[in-house]
Amino acid sequence: MNVTTRCDGTDLRQIAEPGELRRLIRQGGYTGRTGGLAMGRVQANIAIMPADAADDFLRYCQRNPKPCPLLAVSEPGDPSLPELGAGIDVRTDIPSYSVFRDGELVEDVHDIRGLWRKNFVAFALGCSYSFEQAIIEAGLRLHHIDARMGPPRYTSSIDTVAAGPFSGKMVVTLRAFPPADAIRAIQVTSRFPMVHGAPVHMGNPRLIGIEDLDTQCDSTFIPYPEDEEIPLFWACGVTPQVAAQAARLPLFITHTPAHMLICDTMNAALAAF
Amino acid sequence: MNVTTRCDGTDLRQIAEPGELRRLIRQGGYTGRTGGLAMGRVQANIAIMPADAADDFLRYCQRNPKPCPLLAVSEPGDPSLPELGAGIDVRTDIPSYSVFRDGELVEDVHDIRGLWRKNFVAFALGCSYSFEQAIIEAGLRLHHIDARMGPPRYTSSIDTVAAGPFSGKMVVTLRAFPPADAIRAIQVTSRFPMVHGAPVHMGNPRLIGIEDLDTQCDSTFIPYPEDEEIPLFWACGVTPQVAAQAARLPLFITHTPAHMLICDTMNAALAAF
Repeated sequence: MNVTTRCDGTDLRQIAEPGELRRLIRQGGYTGRTGGLAMGRVQANIAIMPADAADDFLRYCQRNPKPCPLLAVSEPGDPSLPELGAGIDVRTDIPSYSVFRDGELVEDVHDIRGLWRKNFVAFALGCSYSFEQAIIEAGLRLHHIDARMGPPRYTSSIDTVAAGPFSGKMVVTLRAFPPADAIRAIQVTSRFPMVHGAPVHMGNPRLIGIEDLDTQCDSTFIPYPEDEEIPLFWACGVTPQVAAQAARLPLFITHTPAHMLICDTMNAALAAF
Repeated sequence: MNVTTRCDGTDLRQIAEPGELRRLIRQGGYTGRTGGLAMGRVQANIAIMPADAADDFLRYCQRNPKPCPLLAVSEPGDPSLPELGAGIDVRTDIPSYSVFRDGELVEDVHDIRGLWRKNFVAFALGCSYSFEQAIIEAGLRLHHIDARMGPPRYTSSIDTVAAGPFSGKMVVTLRAFPPADAIRAIQVTSRFPMVHGAPVHMGNPRLIGIEDLDTQCDSTFIPYPEDEEIPLFWACGVTPQVAAQAARLPLFITHTPAHMLICDTMNAALAAF
């Protein structure tokens, strides 16, 4: 069984309808990664927390739009996100949730109906899958996609702007390109500020606190296969998760990495121009 | 008398109306550089040649839009460019013209009414002054402006696409920025494809045939005053002039460098989005 195959053998990549995928996930029929599913649709990072923390978190996202681009915020206690899809229920529609207590990961679960409280607020944040689609459609090569991995990820020395208990360094991801493609990648991703937008840095990694691309990598470093490629660094959606962990909230819940909310919204609809 | 002062002592920088500046130039009242005049208005590179060569030149510009962004092309024999300004006469409204015969510069003149023929075609091409205004308004620093010079200029190893007798290497200009400003400069200039648009290269100059930034500079090299700046290279409007010289046309006429056609069109009106 590969990662996009459900228990009964259906290949989920053949299901184009995001609502159908969400129903399947809701029923427990799929608990895997969402990369490659419902191509062309937005996939969102999810953060869920009680309303008192949510007020601060909302200001944290507003102050740090590159790592924390807000696609939608629920009403307190309301698990729907109508801007992003008909009938979304954030308690059931994500294949896997990570539950943090006092800043520590305590469990991964497939359903949070039992944890949901009526003061919970859900945040949906833009994810790099959307801008990577635009990069690929522009004919550019992504080394981590070739390697069937996620992009190399680092904790940079760039401070985010604090709000209430939320603060910390910006997490960034690395994608390297030949110079002309790097210029094109900046142009293409600039069109998508709702999904991290343009890079925050390029060139020398030491200028943002990364002395060694390999050993300091928080995921898996994908070496550039070609000389003279320029590394571009984008703000990463792991940033708010790290900030929430550091805030040691009594309880917060996120999607498990790579297990995203599949939305109705088209990636192309997020283009600012 | 400084460079923007006419014979009677008027400081031309106080004249905001481009039509008034063109009339003054037409009357021989000003023969100097146009940088800093009619701020906010487009200033255009000019190339004038007989219709038979013009057909090839038009295709050359179409095939090389980054060095040769066409703002307007006159009707054969008609010295007006109504798209760019009311009453423009390209025979008189440029402060200084360079006249080339068989590819050699033979003279600089202030009026070409005596040279004009009824099969002449005038081309107006976008100039970096327009995108530099956008860079400056974005709050970024241009070292050559600080030094009161033009940008460093190089003949790159990048081939242009030939058309008829026109061909040759792309001429580029260099502007260096700290990494985040370099990303911003790419974004800002991407909005202006009609005035060279985004850079054609960044980073290692050797990849485009420039081994030494200082000794290979065709103008004056402005060293980067700060470590870790990234050099960005833009296509330059000198490219078509070099191609026209190499084509050894019996006669062609350009503006003298830095002595441009001042248009009515606002720079901001050229933004593609």
